[in-house]
Amino acid sequence: MSLEVNDFFFVFQGPDGKFGIPQAAIESVNRNKVGLKGPLMTPIGKGHRSLNLALRKEFNLYANVRPCRSLEGYKTLYDHVDVVTIRENTEGEYSGIEHEIVEGVVQSIKLITEDASRRVAEFAFQYAVENNRKKVTAVHKANIMRMSDGLFLRCCREVAKNFPQIKFEERYLDTVCLNMVQDPHQYDVLVMPNLYGDILSDMCAGLVGGLGLTPSGNIGLNGALFESVHGTAPDIAGQDKANPTALLLSAVMMLKYMGLNSHAERIQNACFATIKEAKFLTGDLGGKAKCSEFTNEICEKVAIS
Amino acid sequence: MSLEVNDFFFVFQGPDGKFGIPQAAIESVNRNKVGLKGPLMTPIGKGHRSLNLALRKEFNLYANVRPCRSLEGYKTLYDHVDVVTIRENTEGEYSGIEHEIVEGVVQSIKLITEDASRRVAEFAFQYAVENNRKKVTAVHKANIMRMSDGLFLRCCREVAKNFPQIKFEERYLDTVCLNMVQDPHQYDVLVMPNLYGDILSDMCAGLVGGLGLTPSGNIGLNGALFESVHGTAPDIAGQDKANPTALLLSAVMMLKYMGLNSHAERIQNACFATIKEAKFLTGDLGGKAKCSEFTNEICEKVAIS
Ligand SMILES: CC(C)[C@H](C(=O)O)[C@@H](O)C(=O)O
Ligand SMILES: CC(C)[C@H](C(=O)O)[C@@H](O)C(=O)O
Repeated sequence: MSLEVNDFFFVFQGPDGKFGIPQAAIESVNRNKVGLKGPLMTPIGKGHRSLNLALRKEFNLYANVRPCRSLEGYKTLYDHVDVVTIRENTEGEYSGIEHEIVEGVVQSIKLITEDASRRVAEFAFQYAVENNRKKVTAVHKANIMRMSDGLFLRCCREVAKNFPQIKFEERYLDTVCLNMVQDPHQYDVLVMPNLYGDILSDMCAGLVGGLGLTPSGNIGLNGALFESVHGTAPDIAGQDKANPTALLLSAVMMLKYMGLNSHAERIQNACFATIKEAKFLTGDLGGKAKCSEFTNEICEKVAIS
Repeated sequence: MSLEVNDFFFVFQGPDGKFGIPQAAIESVNRNKVGLKGPLMTPIGKGHRSLNLALRKEFNLYANVRPCRSLEGYKTLYDHVDVVTIRENTEGEYSGIEHEIVEGVVQSIKLITEDASRRVAEFAFQYAVENNRKKVTAVHKANIMRMSDGLFLRCCREVAKNFPQIKFEERYLDTVCLNMVQDPHQYDVLVMPNLYGDILSDMCAGLVGGLGLTPSGNIGLNGALFESVHGTAPDIAGQDKANPTALLLSAVMMLKYMGLNSHAERIQNACFATIKEAKFLTGDLGGKAKCSEFTNEICEKVAIS
């Protein structure tokens, strides 16, 4: 079976100066049920709202899955890291509800619902079962946000009961951050509210070499969007220097999600082998290869596999 | 000059079964303007609210200062770490305002005010000046919490203008987490809202060996409370095993705060030397010494210094 890319879109600045997601891109994802997305810039303060978030909202992509695994041949301070953060992706600190009641006094709402918490907890345990993982850790600050994180934690505890084959534990967010830099091997799958996932997934990526190497998937009921999480790196635009690994591995996640496991494995193996051989590494990986050279090497390996 | 401990209190469970801060302890801190505090348990979910937070509120301890420095002789994955997190300590995600509007829908309020943000930003820059540091990094998610973190960031930017001798930079929280595990040396002093400080300070402590080694100070306008941030370790209670370093170094911070620099340095040097010699280390540091043996060694070194 050969694969074809159905549609290809830019998220662009329209004639009105506003950024937006083209209607045709939305229709494409609705039709194909999957999409692969490159990085997008999110401005601070004024300007357009994050399009990453807009996409997550638009398709109700409730679980953000980010595996972080040490790559053979790419050395960091940590060996054999293998953790997966599963982040609630629709609410929490990302609710977007903020108001300035009196000048100089701002309130931002962290919204935690039972439905979304239970849904992502179920996703995490189901993921653990399907991917042969042993343990799910719920990450929270229910000692401080007793009602909101308390609700999240309660949902995790309840869902855990339906998965007796998976070990369940709960940890404070700060404790996880501390443990993770000392001994990441004590963790397996982690599930948590939105912002905590934002933080922890970046931190875990750091342990294995950074966002240039880690894939991510945003999973919804009616579709999924896979993306690299790194920035747009405007400083090296057009120079054929970027490391495509994160995007490639996100494509691999997408293929697995579509049930195309053998396609996924061929690309993944080629990518890992190219990194391990270290003949064609991009600059961020300590090599001198161009993005195109690195990618060609992977393509050649896929062709003969 | 000799030093005396004025007052000594337990925070205890009263006859009504409620935990609380004894009135006499509050009066003591108000009178002495400083206090040294051991760890306290905070329960999850129901039960009493965190007494740590109650103390921070009671004395309006608006800046939480946590230096994390690699200790000579105690090896971790990271060398020469030297960062200081300065955490807004009175509001943010710790506002304590939460409500369940309809069942299963909880809102927690993150409260960011201009006054508290400016105050802690000023503290951070002032700290940088007084401690000969070069740079202050404001840590935020103003791309998501545009109004609240936006306000915090704006205050930092404005305060930065009054300190042209200190470099100022701003970074996303997730980016800081990623960078910190890859190269902590790019950071110096960091200032941030409450929860971010909770996370980052634990993570930085992890880089240098954990909460058993890192001191902390809660600074207010009318007094300050110094504390070790680790847990109560009920599993080793009464076994003379605990590592007293964090509490000792917190005492050192307190003495410096009181202007008793030479006392502070004698204790600090004795403590560092004891760790470096590695003859009397507690179990968590890889040694076999009891808490009392470790402490006696430090006391002997102080006596001859
Ligand atoms: C770019 C930003 C809006 C986004 C987030 O905060 O979720 C990013 O950090 C991520 O983790 O996908
Ligand atoms: C014990 C807990 C309430 C506290 C916090 O969250 O601030 C602790 O983690 C800390 O960092 O001092």
